[in-house]
Amino acid sequence: MAEGELKVLGLWASPFVMRVRMVLEQKGLNYEHLEQDLSNKGELLLKHNPIYKKVPVLIHGDRSICESLVILQYIDENWSKIGPPLLPSTPYERAIARFWAMYIDDKLQASLRGILMAATEEAITEKIADTCAALQTLEGAFKNYSAGKEFFGGDSIGYLDIILGPFTVWIRIVETIYGTKLLDEAKVPLLVEWEKRILTVDYVKNVLPSVERLEEFGRAFRATA
Amino acid sequence: MAEGELKVLGLWASPFVMRVRMVLEQKGLNYEHLEQDLSNKGELLLKHNPIYKKVPVLIHGDRSICESLVILQYIDENWSKIGPPLLPSTPYERAIARFWAMYIDDKLQASLRGILMAATEEAITEKIADTCAALQTLEGAFKNYSAGKEFFGGDSIGYLDIILGPFTVWIRIVETIYGTKLLDEAKVPLLVEWEKRILTVDYVKNVLPSVERLEEFGRAFRATA
Repeated sequence: MAEGELKVLGLWASPFVMRVRMVLEQKGLNYEHLEQDLSNKGELLLKHNPIYKKVPVLIHGDRSICESLVILQYIDENWSKIGPPLLPSTPYERAIARFWAMYIDDKLQASLRGILMAATEEAITEKIADTCAALQTLEGAFKNYSAGKEFFGGDSIGYLDIILGPFTVWIRIVETIYGTKLLDEAKVPLLVEWEKRILTVDYVKNVLPSVERLEEFGRAFRATA
Repeated sequence: MAEGELKVLGLWASPFVMRVRMVLEQKGLNYEHLEQDLSNKGELLLKHNPIYKKVPVLIHGDRSICESLVILQYIDENWSKIGPPLLPSTPYERAIARFWAMYIDDKLQASLRGILMAATEEAITEKIADTCAALQTLEGAFKNYSAGKEFFGGDSIGYLDIILGPFTVWIRIVETIYGTKLLDEAKVPLLVEWEKRILTVDYVKNVLPSVERLEEFGRAFRATA
């Protein structure tokens, strides 16, 4: 296990940063969270993520690791003896977890962000439909994947729970801002139950920002504000 | 190690399919390559990749694994005892490899494809500049990463060599079609040397299609044809 102090270059509202913090909290690792100003990027961020200049960045001693999915796997592999493993143990189950992680970041994230970035009512309607379709697909994945267990990771929170978890708060806020229903009990009942369960977990609650503060941020962020 | 017959649902011209085949050949695993007609997708593809309906798909016994980066890691983990490991052994080196793999698929792939899809001269010029910038960044990565060794993977071919390798043939074809220079010795000398080295490796040569055939495919594919 490599040693050194842990720092996260982050942004309180970013679901990608929340993931990293959740896993650090789950493992009980001490870290310092350094909030970044993305409208005026500082030297620290430019030094440690010169390629994308984005958060999150995990600084571990003299190393920097960028991209949230890469960081999560790094933490899981570097502190493999602390707490339950994040990724499943067999190559096939790991492949399935990695596939759905990419799906969440590709399809769900893009459509949810698309709602906020949409400049016309027509575009908003289209992106809401895309988000609902992605959630339906994830409902099916959860059904196959969890096989009746509580989490994507089985009996305890795993890779996909940590990856999808922070989006649920953003989904609820988008629902409020646009007066729509995305995580709908009638359409994605398993995900709605799963959401309730993850929100009872201490290290998930510790990391998620308040709904009020995030709603204000979301309203300011959207294109049609 | 899970057992079962191996099949690849593929397309001869796809760099993503070439990767998978290179790793299977490197490991000396027998597999059947089933060429897909993407203009008229068959039942096999729709059954085994219902989410994206894309190639490559690796069918291993009764399992299907989709997305080339996921497939490569599956092969590496499932046949970890055969041949040299694809990914490095330490968590940090693995993180760096995964970061650059995403960069190649995100930035280099998108800009290279962008040249072929561009509908105006202006857009072509812009995408050529993006491709050159991505290659410059990868030149820097290779310099740091390989630290004077022959491949991204060190003394033998690794994850990033397999991921970037198939793009070099596409890059050369784009150079011919558009009369431009992308893998330019004056700007990315380490990558040009690296390209020569990987092209001498048997299982790389076995998988790459002929330049003539790929050029014809590329010319038909481009938007301004």
